[in-house]
Amino acid sequence: MNEVPTNFSSTPLLDYINGPEDVRWLDDAALVSLADELRDEVIDVVSQTGGHLGSSLGVVELTIAIHAVFNTPHDKLIWDVGHQCYPHKILTGRRSKMLSLRQGGGLSGFTKRSEAIHDPFGAAHSSTSISAALGFATARGLGGDVGEAIAVIGDGALSAGLAYEALNNAGNQSERLFVILNDNEMSIAPPVGAVSQYLTGISGKMAAEPTELANHMPGEVRDSSRHARNLILNPPGGCGTMFEQLGFTYIGPIDGHDLPTLLPALRQAKTLADGPVLIHVRTIKGKGYAPAEEAADRGHGVGSFDKNTGKGKKKAANAPSYTSVFGKALSQEASIDERVVAITAAMPSGTGVDILAKAHPSRVFDVGIAEQHGVTFAAGLAAAGMKPFCAIYSTFLQRAYDQIVHDVALQNLPVRFAIDRAGLVGADGATHAGSFDVGYLSALPNMVVMAAADEAELMHMVRTAVAYDGGPISFRYPRGEGVGAMLPERGQVLELGKGRILQEGGDVALLSFGAHLEECRMAASQLEARGYGVTLADARFAKPLDTALIKQLVRHHKSLVLVEQGARGGFGAMVLHYLAEKGLLGWRCQVRSITLPDLFIDQASPLAMYEQAGMTSDDIVREALAGL
Amino acid sequence: MNEVPTNFSSTPLLDYINGPEDVRWLDDAALVSLADELRDEVIDVVSQTGGHLGSSLGVVELTIAIHAVFNTPHDKLIWDVGHQCYPHKILTGRRSKMLSLRQGGGLSGFTKRSEAIHDPFGAAHSSTSISAALGFATARGLGGDVGEAIAVIGDGALSAGLAYEALNNAGNQSERLFVILNDNEMSIAPPVGAVSQYLTGISGKMAAEPTELANHMPGEVRDSSRHARNLILNPPGGCGTMFEQLGFTYIGPIDGHDLPTLLPALRQAKTLADGPVLIHVRTIKGKGYAPAEEAADRGHGVGSFDKNTGKGKKKAANAPSYTSVFGKALSQEASIDERVVAITAAMPSGTGVDILAKAHPSRVFDVGIAEQHGVTFAAGLAAAGMKPFCAIYSTFLQRAYDQIVHDVALQNLPVRFAIDRAGLVGADGATHAGSFDVGYLSALPNMVVMAAADEAELMHMVRTAVAYDGGPISFRYPRGEGVGAMLPERGQVLELGKGRILQEGGDVALLSFGAHLEECRMAASQLEARGYGVTLADARFAKPLDTALIKQLVRHHKSLVLVEQGARGGFGAMVLHYLAEKGLLGWRCQVRSITLPDLFIDQASPLAMYEQAGMTSDDIVREALAGL
Repeated sequence: MNEVPTNFSSTPLLDYINGPEDVRWLDDAALVSLADELRDEVIDVVSQTGGHLGSSLGVVELTIAIHAVFNTPHDKLIWDVGHQCYPHKILTGRRSKMLSLRQGGGLSGFTKRSEAIHDPFGAAHSSTSISAALGFATARGLGGDVGEAIAVIGDGALSAGLAYEALNNAGNQSERLFVILNDNEMSIAPPVGAVSQYLTGISGKMAAEPTELANHMPGEVRDSSRHARNLILNPPGGCGTMFEQLGFTYIGPIDGHDLPTLLPALRQAKTLADGPVLIHVRTIKGKGYAPAEEAADRGHGVGSFDKNTGKGKKKAANAPSYTSVFGKALSQEASIDERVVAITAAMPSGTGVDILAKAHPSRVFDVGIAEQHGVTFAAGLAAAGMKPFCAIYSTFLQRAYDQIVHDVALQNLPVRFAIDRAGLVGADGATHAGSFDVGYLSALPNMVVMAAADEAELMHMVRTAVAYDGGPISFRYPRGEGVGAMLPERGQVLELGKGRILQEGGDVALLSFGAHLEECRMAASQLEARGYGVTLADARFAKPLDTALIKQLVRHHKSLVLVEQGARGGFGAMVLHYLAEKGLLGWRCQVRSITLPDLFIDQASPLAMYEQAGMTSDDIVREALAGL
Repeated sequence: MNEVPTNFSSTPLLDYINGPEDVRWLDDAALVSLADELRDEVIDVVSQTGGHLGSSLGVVELTIAIHAVFNTPHDKLIWDVGHQCYPHKILTGRRSKMLSLRQGGGLSGFTKRSEAIHDPFGAAHSSTSISAALGFATARGLGGDVGEAIAVIGDGALSAGLAYEALNNAGNQSERLFVILNDNEMSIAPPVGAVSQYLTGISGKMAAEPTELANHMPGEVRDSSRHARNLILNPPGGCGTMFEQLGFTYIGPIDGHDLPTLLPALRQAKTLADGPVLIHVRTIKGKGYAPAEEAADRGHGVGSFDKNTGKGKKKAANAPSYTSVFGKALSQEASIDERVVAITAAMPSGTGVDILAKAHPSRVFDVGIAEQHGVTFAAGLAAAGMKPFCAIYSTFLQRAYDQIVHDVALQNLPVRFAIDRAGLVGADGATHAGSFDVGYLSALPNMVVMAAADEAELMHMVRTAVAYDGGPISFRYPRGEGVGAMLPERGQVLELGKGRILQEGGDVALLSFGAHLEECRMAASQLEARGYGVTLADARFAKPLDTALIKQLVRHHKSLVLVEQGARGGFGAMVLHYLAEKGLLGWRCQVRSITLPDLFIDQASPLAMYEQAGMTSDDIVREALAGL
């Protein structure tokens, strides 16, 4: 892993960088050369590993400038989301491990406290950096051994209320704090919302400057400190930016790819700052690599690729992805029922609602990274008689929990939750695991909780959710390809609270909830090979439970194993509670439950992650036999 | 209930108002008189029932103006939080039930969809109204039968990210929408944050006007439409307000107690509006009732009182409140360990951290209604070596779930969660119930989950949380008075994952988690009176579980009952999962679990609510016997 592949670009300066202190030895001209090498290195690495290419390329110069100007790691550098951290990892002692990125046992694709002292606050979800940086700055004010606190946040992340709450508090507390706004006019998709338009308005004011900047050749260091100072003291627009209204000193906009501007601007900011400072930096996502710059998503997330052509090394797909099956089914149902609308939080293609958007653009709402608003907005739509589908990944739906409780469940409003990326998700690791949704939703009165065992089931659940207008309803499904199930022309309306029996046998019952059904099937075969009779059932519903099915399984088997791709407190807990309530736990049947274990599982292949979780077919067989 | 008490003020106009259409019959001069009567009525009612006095008094004129100008209920009027809705309820057909406010079987203290068509979107938690109103407006754009959409939101509620997300999206979507900013410079406590200062800045511009306004006597209707029009077209400040930058038309500030200004302003707004409009109205919380206006919290939440003096009818307290015990214990520990700091989300006195603030003002952070930021800020403080206590009610902690998962638990940062108002809360009803925290926290790796059985236990848990630096830790405790437990000089550090046995007996074991221990004690007595031997234990921890204790209880009793003041998926689920894992469910011991039932329970006395929940000592006895 430490051997550099022979097709990697030559990096004479970078080869001497073992940590950020080495960056600080270089003069400004050398830093410009270092940026070229670092960019090549990022392209070389990601062409092998895949990952977040565009965002990392966009901050090559910014990463160098921050480490050159600030005294990291004593100064706390906090990358928002953290997916743009590849240049940062290369500069902070992790270069030799970069080819292990996003793989089992390797480097995380995000910043991570346990990985290096250079990551003082890890991330992966958006918009947390300013709050965390304010925590560090406040601790310093109370005597903590903390240097500067620096948050780097994208303009897309500013659509989240959390970022606003943090700006509001930072403006109020007046601690010395640097917020670097990495403004690339991109979220994952193009950003939405009025704030985004507002930033574009500010940035338009930079239009007069590019010729001036263009006069300076790369490598030439000009005295831009006067320019930077002017930016601090005379922000453009006269009226003051929104950030100034919130109490920040505003600096910018600055060309984030021009180190001769960026370096003195940061140095000036450090000198002049008293209280919170916002440094507005303009960058281009995918900068310096044509295939990324030209892509619609600016190379946001890519697989491995040929670095000469930018073409991905395609794997043959075995079955359509759950996401595309959902998107098509939703679009199909929406063409039949015009009350169907969809809400996404900055993930139109990730969730598949872009398929509906193509057919009916006015019926898809991309609210930005604003899950809270997305859910309450959906509740308003439902109260007005629409059939809103909130298509939000399991891990991100956590951001709207109170809105689900207070605005949806309490009012029994028929909001539909399409929960993609349920269960373990592979390369994105623990931060993106969809572990908790079944528990936090099943606890809520009025909520219907479903999980799809395969892509055909997903189609049924989309249809069921359209048909059900009695209250909130949710269905979860995993990341990635389906199992290759035969797809119907159109989904069927499922009977609420009814599971299905797939095979019957006399000794052991396996009751699966959701996408672990295939492992249960394998476990059933293994058990049958040992001579046991096995009933295999798909619960479909964690709420309402199919109590008739559960009673039948407990009464007619010696061992019942409950299986789900979620943490304790979800489906298994609902079944155990029911059995306790009915006094059925003392029955002859031994009940066991397989859930995600009580730990955060680092990135690896989904298969390897489920092995670590103790959720293979062998594990299921073992639990089934333990009950006999 | 329908009989008007004899000491109520005379209300000749109000007596003819059976719904908002009757308000619209009155001319503007009569509306001014109606306002006086409505204010008297609110004071009369709340003097009997207690409730949210100050906020309701602050919107008397605004309520009348909105119903006079807009065509409610076809136009959708959405009150943010909803605690200011008493005048609205009186005008919309619920006057005769007002004396049942906040009582079992009576009117909710908030807006509620199931109560009246005049409440198109209920509330109780803050900052949801703009999102919901945008949902209605959007449904109208898609052909839904919806009139205007009007959100009324306080300035305090603007500190929440959800409101910002909604403004951002409303500014972007350009649907016709009215947001009325009820700016009283108060949240529950005085509001904090830069946005609040910003609003005060705008409002300062109204200072030139009061003399002009004062020239008009109450009852005199002047032609203020020109004035209102000017406000729309020429907002003060020249540069445009923040709302304008977000894409809103800004109107204001307007004196919210001056109907001759307010009415034409709303009429003009309705005429001119194209897209989203923000109407900035200045009001005084507690307006028109001296005892409320003069109170520090402007009479935010009051018990019943003597309307002549404003003095509360005091009930003798039996024991100190959990809140005050927490506040004192925290302050005590903070005086010993200077790394202890506290975070509150706009509830310094509600959570008791004001006690610490008095001793160490620099170590308490009121972040406004911004739970998300509060938690991630605390995570930053913890990462920098501090010992932050997030003191947030159970129901409001839901607003920061992803921050707990992603910023705290995943990074295993030692943030302390002090969770007040756990379980059912009485008069505030279902929206404020603390039902889900044990489940949504126990599901998280690294999290320690405790519950206090009494106020002495709470002191131990505060001390334990200070001492424990290994990761996140939480402790919950109920609303209201303690049980009168003897309080120690200082709390003790509890052993992690160890419960305690309070009495031993051979037949039945009752294992209580948290504040239902007293009912378990009563149930034990009842069982003993019937001749059964009873072991009574307090689990203290839902995570890590006291597995030795649980094994012992299962092995040596015929019946085990688990009791908690929370929804399914919490403590009981963790115990059942553990027993399933160890194959102990087939043991001779029958295990039952008592939790909150699967329904939202309306306001009543806490005792009556727990009766409805099936959680009395009789219920516990019944479950214990069912297992024998």
